[in-house]
Amino acid sequence: MINVAIVGVSGFTGLELVRILLHHNKFHINYVSNSTGGQSLAQIHPELHGVLDMAVSKTSIEDIADKSQLVFLAVPHQTAMSIVPKLLQKGLKIVDLSADYRLDVATYETAYCPHTDQTNLPYATYGLPEFYSKDIAATSLVANPGCYPTASLLGLMPFVPYIKPNTPVFIDAKSGVSGAGKKLNATTSYMHIQENSFAYNPLAHRHSYEITYILKNLTQQSWDINFVPHILPVSRGMLTSIYVQLDQTIDPNKILKEYYKADRFIRIRTSPPTIKETSHTNFCDIFVATKGQNLFINTSIDNLSRGASSQAVVNANIMYGLDERLGV
Amino acid sequence: MINVAIVGVSGFTGLELVRILLHHNKFHINYVSNSTGGQSLAQIHPELHGVLDMAVSKTSIEDIADKSQLVFLAVPHQTAMSIVPKLLQKGLKIVDLSADYRLDVATYETAYCPHTDQTNLPYATYGLPEFYSKDIAATSLVANPGCYPTASLLGLMPFVPYIKPNTPVFIDAKSGVSGAGKKLNATTSYMHIQENSFAYNPLAHRHSYEITYILKNLTQQSWDINFVPHILPVSRGMLTSIYVQLDQTIDPNKILKEYYKADRFIRIRTSPPTIKETSHTNFCDIFVATKGQNLFINTSIDNLSRGASSQAVVNANIMYGLDERLGV
Amino acid sequence: MINVAIVGVSGFTGLELVRILLHHNKFHINYVSNSTGGQSLAQIHPELHGVLDMAVSKTSIEDIADKSQLVFLAVPHQTAMSIVPKLLQKGLKIVDLSADYRLDVATYETAYCPHTDQTNLPYATYGLPEFYSKDIAATSLVANPGCYPTASLLGLMPFVPYIKPNTPVFIDAKSGVSGAGKKLNATTSYMHIQENSFAYNPLAHRHSYEITYILKNLTQQSWDINFVPHILPVSRGMLTSIYVQLDQTIDPNKILKEYYKADRFIRIRTSPPTIKETSHTNFCDIFVATKGQNLFINTSIDNLSRGASSQAVVNANIMYGLDERLGV
Amino acid sequence: MINVAIVGVSGFTGLELVRILLHHNKFHINYVSNSTGGQSLAQIHPELHGVLDMAVSKTSIEDIADKSQLVFLAVPHQTAMSIVPKLLQKGLKIVDLSADYRLDVATYETAYCPHTDQTNLPYATYGLPEFYSKDIAATSLVANPGCYPTASLLGLMPFVPYIKPNTPVFIDAKSGVSGAGKKLNATTSYMHIQENSFAYNPLAHRHSYEITYILKNLTQQSWDINFVPHILPVSRGMLTSIYVQLDQTIDPNKILKEYYKADRFIRIRTSPPTIKETSHTNFCDIFVATKGQNLFINTSIDNLSRGASSQAVVNANIMYGLDERLGV
Repeated sequence: MINVAIVGVSGFTGLELVRILLHHNKFHINYVSNSTGGQSLAQIHPELHGVLDMAVSKTSIEDIADKSQLVFLAVPHQTAMSIVPKLLQKGLKIVDLSADYRLDVATYETAYCPHTDQTNLPYATYGLPEFYSKDIAATSLVANPGCYPTASLLGLMPFVPYIKPNTPVFIDAKSGVSGAGKKLNATTSYMHIQENSFAYNPLAHRHSYEITYILKNLTQQSWDINFVPHILPVSRGMLTSIYVQLDQTIDPNKILKEYYKADRFIRIRTSPPTIKETSHTNFCDIFVATKGQNLFINTSIDNLSRGASSQAVVNANIMYGLDERLGV
Repeated sequence: MINVAIVGVSGFTGLELVRILLHHNKFHINYVSNSTGGQSLAQIHPELHGVLDMAVSKTSIEDIADKSQLVFLAVPHQTAMSIVPKLLQKGLKIVDLSADYRLDVATYETAYCPHTDQTNLPYATYGLPEFYSKDIAATSLVANPGCYPTASLLGLMPFVPYIKPNTPVFIDAKSGVSGAGKKLNATTSYMHIQENSFAYNPLAHRHSYEITYILKNLTQQSWDINFVPHILPVSRGMLTSIYVQLDQTIDPNKILKEYYKADRFIRIRTSPPTIKETSHTNFCDIFVATKGQNLFINTSIDNLSRGASSQAVVNANIMYGLDERLGV
Repeated sequence: MINVAIVGVSGFTGLELVRILLHHNKFHINYVSNSTGGQSLAQIHPELHGVLDMAVSKTSIEDIADKSQLVFLAVPHQTAMSIVPKLLQKGLKIVDLSADYRLDVATYETAYCPHTDQTNLPYATYGLPEFYSKDIAATSLVANPGCYPTASLLGLMPFVPYIKPNTPVFIDAKSGVSGAGKKLNATTSYMHIQENSFAYNPLAHRHSYEITYILKNLTQQSWDINFVPHILPVSRGMLTSIYVQLDQTIDPNKILKEYYKADRFIRIRTSPPTIKETSHTNFCDIFVATKGQNLFINTSIDNLSRGASSQAVVNANIMYGLDERLGV
Repeated sequence: MINVAIVGVSGFTGLELVRILLHHNKFHINYVSNSTGGQSLAQIHPELHGVLDMAVSKTSIEDIADKSQLVFLAVPHQTAMSIVPKLLQKGLKIVDLSADYRLDVATYETAYCPHTDQTNLPYATYGLPEFYSKDIAATSLVANPGCYPTASLLGLMPFVPYIKPNTPVFIDAKSGVSGAGKKLNATTSYMHIQENSFAYNPLAHRHSYEITYILKNLTQQSWDINFVPHILPVSRGMLTSIYVQLDQTIDPNKILKEYYKADRFIRIRTSPPTIKETSHTNFCDIFVATKGQNLFINTSIDNLSRGASSQAVVNANIMYGLDERLGV
């Protein structure tokens, strides 16, 4: 068994990591922490009463190193890059669920804030296994992708060769409320969300930088990504509806099947995917349709699973040479 | 007082008409019917106990003509065009909430079925008051618009002059469940909808014909409309997220304000509209944003109010020369 | 027209008062305030854009007196009793939606906190019109009832003569989330409420004092009230399920019809009432059933309407000698 | 590995059995069926694409016997007792999730319909492991309890010695919509359930017979059970709020802890349990509070897990001498 630490266990993705790892037969949860410590896991997440009621420590690099070989960081951006250098020095493997190691310095600083660990940034690997599995297998630091970029990139990549040059890509994304995190605010109160839906940060969300940057990395070309996320009145789950213009007529299902023929976590659907059908799984369901040379790509993932915690565990599996599906 | 008949009172839009007309001081509900008769209004809609508990008749042309001057048809397509000719012969004014008189013959028959009242079809007026109020004031037969076309056309029209020629328009629409009507099916069961969302009829919904047809009528040019509706887990309400490419850089809010300066039911918003903020109103809220020469147009209406019954009442107000806002 | 002030317009009941009074043809909203001032009504409640976008003042006794004859206090307990004496001195009529004037000193101080206006407390009238309409017509200060007491007392009162002496009354109540008010807390976040339900303050909720106190007042006998409220994952609405033991076999529907034969806001139902059927109305729907000498009483009200704002308007109507149904 | 058949795999409990058994390391799903056959499991339950996409057979006794040793019957009452005799003759072990073998003939026929397998009825064991585990270990036919009886009996049993003789027990229960099964009807449409809640079959639900019968069996005394179920607008989950009168003052938590000290699937809570905290688990969470000699017992289970499928798997574990927690 490989001992595992979950840092930032109080949030939604922390809880999701606990749930997944409880049934993983190679990774053993040996340390959980948050910024304050002093409570038990079941005090923070009452559903864990009688399931796993260990103490939640105040995060300490020494303790993490003593108790674990593999660390999941489920902490906010900025916090992650303040911890990662020390954990790497201790020789630990890390899957970082924050944004801190997903971008290059320039893009990161445009989208977020000054980057304080430029030393390790170039050595991190973007943890989207369909595209980077070899790199993931070789690294000690995986930058686990954002939820929107995961759902968008998995939909777009098969069709890159057919997209008409110099046309915009429109990504209309819809996410459950858990994507906003656990911090209280009026926007995510029940009274605001119930029977409601709305766009937020249209054309200006941080994840549009991540989509654009990674897509450029994967394709060696520039992209005009227009990304508008919306809140859905559901707890979890995510849809993207992607609209692109092609430079030829294509058989999109044939292309999709060929592209993902070896990938176990992609399901090609013959009708539009639903949020529920990928709920609590690592699947990305994809549906495609065309009207002339316009292409509609429709993907569904669970924002807390494929968009965060189950993808993190898949990445850890790959880092340790295990079957990527273990425990997921 | 003008006596009013509501034909097809059992459905969601029928109930909504009742609710609105109860507070209208010129229109008096004098006759309500459905295809079977034999129940009271409160048996069908229990919330009307103690409010308006009149008998629901089996639809009869004679009775409608005896009891009313103005008829709201809240019946399915095909049923409407089987009734309209007889009602017009009786000299009644009609607001038809079905699709039967919205399109020309060719478009209608492509999207729906053979048209059986080609005599009256050319004399119907499309009931989108912002664009057709003069025609509405002069007609006896208003074809009340579909919900998606209402929300889409109100968003698109101000920007027509600036859209880059020969580029596609992408309309990503989201609707509450009431849009599917009251008929039981597995798709609209609670267990399927709760915590769920999904696209349906992507690029193939009947309303895409209506949007395309009316837009051509209004602009005298052809359009490549790509329309994908989605179901939201809410009872009522509708968002459209429209993506277009411009041929110049514009100030979209300035254009919008100028375009709708005289319209009382349009609200120009400085942040993305929400479903709740237009709920139970006839407002269409519009928000716009650009990224370079890409334009995002975001509209919110209540599918049962502005998308059906309150717009029907506004049309009737205009037909009778009343203040369009009366009772709405 | 009677000029009206709404003090505490930011909350859910404040908004509900605005919505109701907008359609009232005798009461005119002439002043709205909250504890800070400085915003417009539509900034606080965006759905009011284009509907009523007046300035929200910082609450001032002088301004209230200048601008209104009738005041609705939609403020927290304690705040109300700090304002009421001054407003009474100005000769204004008051409907107080807080708990401050509902109980006697001893009961109030047990359930809440020290009472700071014992001078006026004895002159306040409890605003449950079915039982206190004559007193309401004669007073300047109505203590608008709590939502749970309204739904409980309306169900219990007809059966008081038949309840077995010295047996407990069990009230299992269920309320929508708006009952908790607008203040942010983890309990009322979407992520906590969605797909959830739970009891809170079992056998210890403040409203159990109010139910017990008013019931004693009405019946001149003591009661063993056991009250357990639950949160429902709905925005608004309330059910009570009341269980009592009788000392005889009764025909509960006959008793109910006789008891409420003159009351327009009570609907006696032949099947259990639902939350939706009383939504946005002032109705209290009641259903009863027996098993031997055990009686089940089931009531439904809208916690924001009959449980707060529409009942407040009914009380104001009665205070002014208007038809109690005006505007409701 | 023990080969398992799931008969009636189309419904909610059938799907739940599949989900649980997929992770069970002693039971292997070797046969699934429904009344028609002819589809794959993923056609019926699309979330199982890529997970378990075996053929769904038309139920055949021969095939069940060929392919399995253990059978879960997730079929309606009446259907179960038409199959059970044949399966027992084949020497199979059976967990029947229907009501057919839970009651004696007289009670069954009062609550349901004529009983057609009185031969085997006396040999069935009621599968509530906390009370009947020894019998379950020795039987070939387990009658898996109803959801409401599970949640009610687990709450009541510890307090039986303290309940005042000849006083009624009031059980106010609340269930998610899945409890109504998958068959379409207007009551369980989204438009009816969303933002709604209501009682149904008050004092007359079939499960009240089961609660009364089993309680008499366990205690050798008669009971006056008054049971009122309510629908909650949630997909799954169940609360019971039980009100009883005691003949003495007790320390309810002490009694509860002592009573369930050996039971792993009971969690004694210090605050009222929530639906979410038992979701997808076999736990029954219990909270108790007193006011004088009135006792409030509050339990939470997942109606599809502890109220059906996970309890069925626990029963099967016990029948095979396995750890009862295996796979659950």
